[in-house]
Amino acid sequence: NISIGSKALQISGLLQPRYQGFQQKGVNDAFDLHRARLDAKGNITDSWSYEIYVEFASSVKLIDGYTAYKFADFAKITAGQFKIPFSNENLVSDSQLEFIDRSQGVEALVGRSKDVIGNSNGRDIGLQLSGNFAKTDDRFLFDYGVGVFNGAGYNVSTDNNYHKDVSARLVFHPLKNLDFGGSWYRGQGIPTGGTKSQARNRYGFDGHYTLGLLSLNAEYIHGTDAAIQKDGWFVQAGYFVWPKKIQLAAKYDTFDPNKTTTTDRTYVYTGGVNFIFNRWTKLAVDYLFKHEETVSPIKNNVFEAQLQIAF
Amino acid sequence: NISIGSKALQISGLLQPRYQGFQQKGVNDAFDLHRARLDAKGNITDSWSYEIYVEFASSVKLIDGYTAYKFADFAKITAGQFKIPFSNENLVSDSQLEFIDRSQGVEALVGRSKDVIGNSNGRDIGLQLSGNFAKTDDRFLFDYGVGVFNGAGYNVSTDNNYHKDVSARLVFHPLKNLDFGGSWYRGQGIPTGGTKSQARNRYGFDGHYTLGLLSLNAEYIHGTDAAIQKDGWFVQAGYFVWPKKIQLAAKYDTFDPNKTTTTDRTYVYTGGVNFIFNRWTKLAVDYLFKHEETVSPIKNNVFEAQLQIAF
Amino acid sequence: NISIGSKALQISGLLQPRYQGFQQKGVNDAFDLHRARLDAKGNITDSWSYEIYVEFASSVKLIDGYTAYKFADFAKITAGQFKIPFSNENLVSDSQLEFIDRSQGVEALVGRSKDVIGNSNGRDIGLQLSGNFAKTDDRFLFDYGVGVFNGAGYNVSTDNNYHKDVSARLVFHPLKNLDFGGSWYRGQGIPTGGTKSQARNRYGFDGHYTLGLLSLNAEYIHGTDAAIQKDGWFVQAGYFVWPKKIQLAAKYDTFDPNKTTTTDRTYVYTGGVNFIFNRWTKLAVDYLFKHEETVSPIKNNVFEAQLQIAF
Repeated sequence: NISIGSKALQISGLLQPRYQGFQQKGVNDAFDLHRARLDAKGNITDSWSYEIYVEFASSVKLIDGYTAYKFADFAKITAGQFKIPFSNENLVSDSQLEFIDRSQGVEALVGRSKDVIGNSNGRDIGLQLSGNFAKTDDRFLFDYGVGVFNGAGYNVSTDNNYHKDVSARLVFHPLKNLDFGGSWYRGQGIPTGGTKSQARNRYGFDGHYTLGLLSLNAEYIHGTDAAIQKDGWFVQAGYFVWPKKIQLAAKYDTFDPNKTTTTDRTYVYTGGVNFIFNRWTKLAVDYLFKHEETVSPIKNNVFEAQLQIAF
Repeated sequence: NISIGSKALQISGLLQPRYQGFQQKGVNDAFDLHRARLDAKGNITDSWSYEIYVEFASSVKLIDGYTAYKFADFAKITAGQFKIPFSNENLVSDSQLEFIDRSQGVEALVGRSKDVIGNSNGRDIGLQLSGNFAKTDDRFLFDYGVGVFNGAGYNVSTDNNYHKDVSARLVFHPLKNLDFGGSWYRGQGIPTGGTKSQARNRYGFDGHYTLGLLSLNAEYIHGTDAAIQKDGWFVQAGYFVWPKKIQLAAKYDTFDPNKTTTTDRTYVYTGGVNFIFNRWTKLAVDYLFKHEETVSPIKNNVFEAQLQIAF
Repeated sequence: NISIGSKALQISGLLQPRYQGFQQKGVNDAFDLHRARLDAKGNITDSWSYEIYVEFASSVKLIDGYTAYKFADFAKITAGQFKIPFSNENLVSDSQLEFIDRSQGVEALVGRSKDVIGNSNGRDIGLQLSGNFAKTDDRFLFDYGVGVFNGAGYNVSTDNNYHKDVSARLVFHPLKNLDFGGSWYRGQGIPTGGTKSQARNRYGFDGHYTLGLLSLNAEYIHGTDAAIQKDGWFVQAGYFVWPKKIQLAAKYDTFDPNKTTTTDRTYVYTGGVNFIFNRWTKLAVDYLFKHEETVSPIKNNVFEAQLQIAF
């Protein structure tokens, strides 16, 4: 920690240079800087914390900007711009993901790149109450978070509709390494390029299990945008073939952008290897087999290699 | 202070999550992040200082970027982008304001949100000479600042006109807690959306008095944009009902955007409470009664609550 | 160094307030903030380093974002966004230049302000192998760098063409203070405002000699954009009339944007004085005589004064 006066301030960062190779015609293989972020966070008092987290890659923007006060284990208030309490994969930090990409369902339904309201990196501006309760010997049995948000995405100074959105999430830890989560979201918003406010509701379930070198994750998310029903789910497994050094991972991920259309579901089968060099660095190599539920499928598999420095 | 090599560098920041409730139809109540700023400043030598102050909320931009050299108490040279020496309220730092908003006159006439040249947060790019003189036992009797600026706003690399603008300010401290200030500005600039350079002149007076728990502030600003005469003034009082913890504040603020039109004056009566939790945090709750000098006034009162973390 | 946990992090910055006076009609004399940058860099291990370097002046953007691993003196791998290994003047850091501006050839042919692909500050996104070899008593005889890049400029997440560009550079140090460099670049890219990918090839030579208070630099760069041949070269000399305090400098710089047109060559003769106050600050005053190879030359000389703080 860097201590400034009597206040604690830590500065850290995340760098992800990446190479992507695309099978699809017209999409060029390219190097990019997936993320280049700096983070300033700290504690004003034991109970009072803050964070300013900024993305500098491609276009510069604020990711997180919030302050939180913890009254007790069961009650912490957070105000500002931060991740909405919805979905486990949304809440896993970028540097901790087992794959380079998040799942289709999270990208489309949790305020990310394919959501109707545009990409807000899973964040929004609002107020949240969160905490843990029902303590056993080594853990709390439950975590929860419930928040009220604009529902108009992050980095905006106005709301495009007068409704506030509500997001809630409850996680149950029956065993130390086993979690079950449920998430619920009810909102109103104007979709990107649209003019009229419409319903934007979601719910989802997820489960996670870690046993020694093995990790298992599964998630289901259902969304309603105006009258359109959508859903997606994935299962993924990770296994350290060389403990703490080399992890193999596989994922089955499917998403249906319109439940009444029968030929629009997409499947992504991902195989990956993560090389963990030390506490701060990782090389992730992923191959994504993409399959579309159409008469003539597109050749659009993707190869990705990403180096990660989290300092 | 964080010391880097033999050079001093301090990093600090400001976070202001806010909620605004609007009485006006069609304006949506909303959460926003009013400010999310990081500041790097320090001293290269005892006399030579610098600052880089960045806003990350909504759209990322540089606020201050300057270096200053103090030859003597009476002579400090500042070069770069910084606040123009005009108006007391303009020069009070955001974290020290007694209300969430600045006055209408300062917003319209001192390079802020309603100024004809656009919002430059009261800053410009140029060169300033400033200092204090006539020392008595416990203070200097006078402060002054005089600067030459582009007059085209901040964060630009060119000037839209060949005139340079001049801003000057003199403050008299007859008693330790009593100040009188006078400001003067003479400029030329192309208004936002315009094509022709026009006069942009201002002058103003202000007074400030602090007596124990009570603080009083008043300010008058007059502006000329091309042929249009404008003026605004306010008086405000703050009183700590609980010393250092809870401050009540009230403000009368009026602005006339065109002195020859008799029905365009606006009045804002603000009542506020500031809860100061500790050295770094504050909760400000303001209610703004807005009144327009028109036949059918608009219902446009505003409720604002803003949490502030200054680390 | 600021140490965060067991990882090293240094924060530094660069501020350059500037004043430019233009002889040319219609170009307004102006103050600007040439650069306002913050830099976070450090070493994760002895061999593994990273840097995030951000420009805040005018429009905020990432300058450098990379990580590098040094296997041996002769082999360092760099991944991310960083300066391409081409030209000496391109690789000299902004704070170390003997003049306020870079040469016309470097601006037009090395991914800077006048390059057909737009201004990328001499950077690109890709992968580089670099190092030193052939060690003598006090130095390596050779430095080299070879990299593969998108060739579409910095701060982009896609490549506008399927070709990757290659840049290579070799420097020979026959004496301790004498360097000869050769650079080579072969690429494809869509020019700014264009739609079709075209060849973008460059090569160049440079030499540098330092003898006591005297420094000499010369550079030649040739470029091919589609079918257009371009070249530019400069020679410059610097001499410290007051050792470590006052340096006089002169430069002859010429550029031909189209070798088949005989009347489009431009000449810039620059005379400058650098006042070095201490380790962190410098005042540079330059006068640029500009001459065009046309029937009626334009009066477009430029006076520049720039204060520099590198903390």
